[in-house]
Amino acid sequence: MNYREVEVTGEYMASLDNGADWREEIESLADEVDTDAAWFNAMGAVQDAEVWFYDQEDQEYQSVTFDEPLEVAACVGNIALLEGDRFAHTHAVLSRRSGQALAGHLNGGTVFAGEVYLRAFEEPLEREHDEVTDLDLWL
Amino acid sequence: MNYREVEVTGEYMASLDNGADWREEIESLADEVDTDAAWFNAMGAVQDAEVWFYDQEDQEYQSVTFDEPLEVAACVGNIALLEGDRFAHTHAVLSRRSGQALAGHLNGGTVFAGEVYLRAFEEPLEREHDEVTDLDLWL
Amino acid sequence: MNYREVEVTGEYMASLDNGADWREEIESLADEVDTDAAWFNAMGAVQDAEVWFYDQEDQEYQSVTFDEPLEVAACVGNIALLEGDRFAHTHAVLSRRSGQALAGHLNGGTVFAGEVYLRAFEEPLEREHDEVTDLDLWL
Repeated sequence: MNYREVEVTGEYMASLDNGADWREEIESLADEVDTDAAWFNAMGAVQDAEVWFYDQEDQEYQSVTFDEPLEVAACVGNIALLEGDRFAHTHAVLSRRSGQALAGHLNGGTVFAGEVYLRAFEEPLEREHDEVTDLDLWL
Repeated sequence: MNYREVEVTGEYMASLDNGADWREEIESLADEVDTDAAWFNAMGAVQDAEVWFYDQEDQEYQSVTFDEPLEVAACVGNIALLEGDRFAHTHAVLSRRSGQALAGHLNGGTVFAGEVYLRAFEEPLEREHDEVTDLDLWL
Repeated sequence: MNYREVEVTGEYMASLDNGADWREEIESLADEVDTDAAWFNAMGAVQDAEVWFYDQEDQEYQSVTFDEPLEVAACVGNIALLEGDRFAHTHAVLSRRSGQALAGHLNGGTVFAGEVYLRAFEEPLEREHDEVTDLDLWL
């Protein structure tokens, strides 16, 4: 396990725009507050969602699209630099009318309404290729 | 996307009372620490739960009640003023014995045990009616 | 509801080791930063997972093992002392390739990749036996 102590530079509440992309909105927030490292929590609802599952054997992401309105019951993620760009690594738990939960890596989704808490750090986080997992990891 | 930088006034750990209502307990915590704006995370278990799903077309909440013991695997939410009262907007992911997950907007649920982390902010958050979604949103 | 205001001693980002145990890694982080009380959030993926559900009537944990790769869509927990040892009370929402979500108390799981945010507090948290629930609770 590798870790780093971080110093906060600011903390923010945000409301996402209806019709925009969930992940892009969070990346826009990172741009607005000019941070290269942050942790966030969010909740709300989307009009659709593209969820990824990482195939640990084939080392490739598999995509599933849910073209239906879903609650965002929980969303956890972080901002780091990936090849020089700010990337919001975003995981989410979604739910259907029945209460059935769906979850995974949220590549994108059309915002219905979204509420975000983001905590920005002084030390930039950079993702680098990891040989074991073939993922881009930080620290 | 709208956002606001926030200043923390205090942070708190809380243990919820067995038999009380999950959301009311969090609202009581907001009252105890006298805050009109906060972000929280929680976990624990409930004896039952009422979960809402927002019908984005009809613009009405649909309710599902689970009258059974459930783990609270993740709970994310925030405190804001709604028509002058403190309201805990609460989303939760619940689970059954099989591991099956259920999720959505948690209107209420009877606490079995609950552990909460709440972070209170100086600037009050106020919910106002939003024409596009017919929801009460802040910022 | 019982609560306590807490003072932060430090906040940390951590990357968990591939092949290690998810919960033990978080407990190692608590050891590294020498804290007896913390709140954490995490995300990533596991190679397998053992999830517990608390039977509120029999007052015993029931275990379910998922011997398959899963995304960790959301993970919420806290560090406290349990019989003198640091214990990471860990809840998680996991997901399968189809997007199906599983959730509960995460006893353990083999890390594929894990990203953690941990916030350490000055005041130690101690778990003590609670007669009503037969659980070890703090505050």
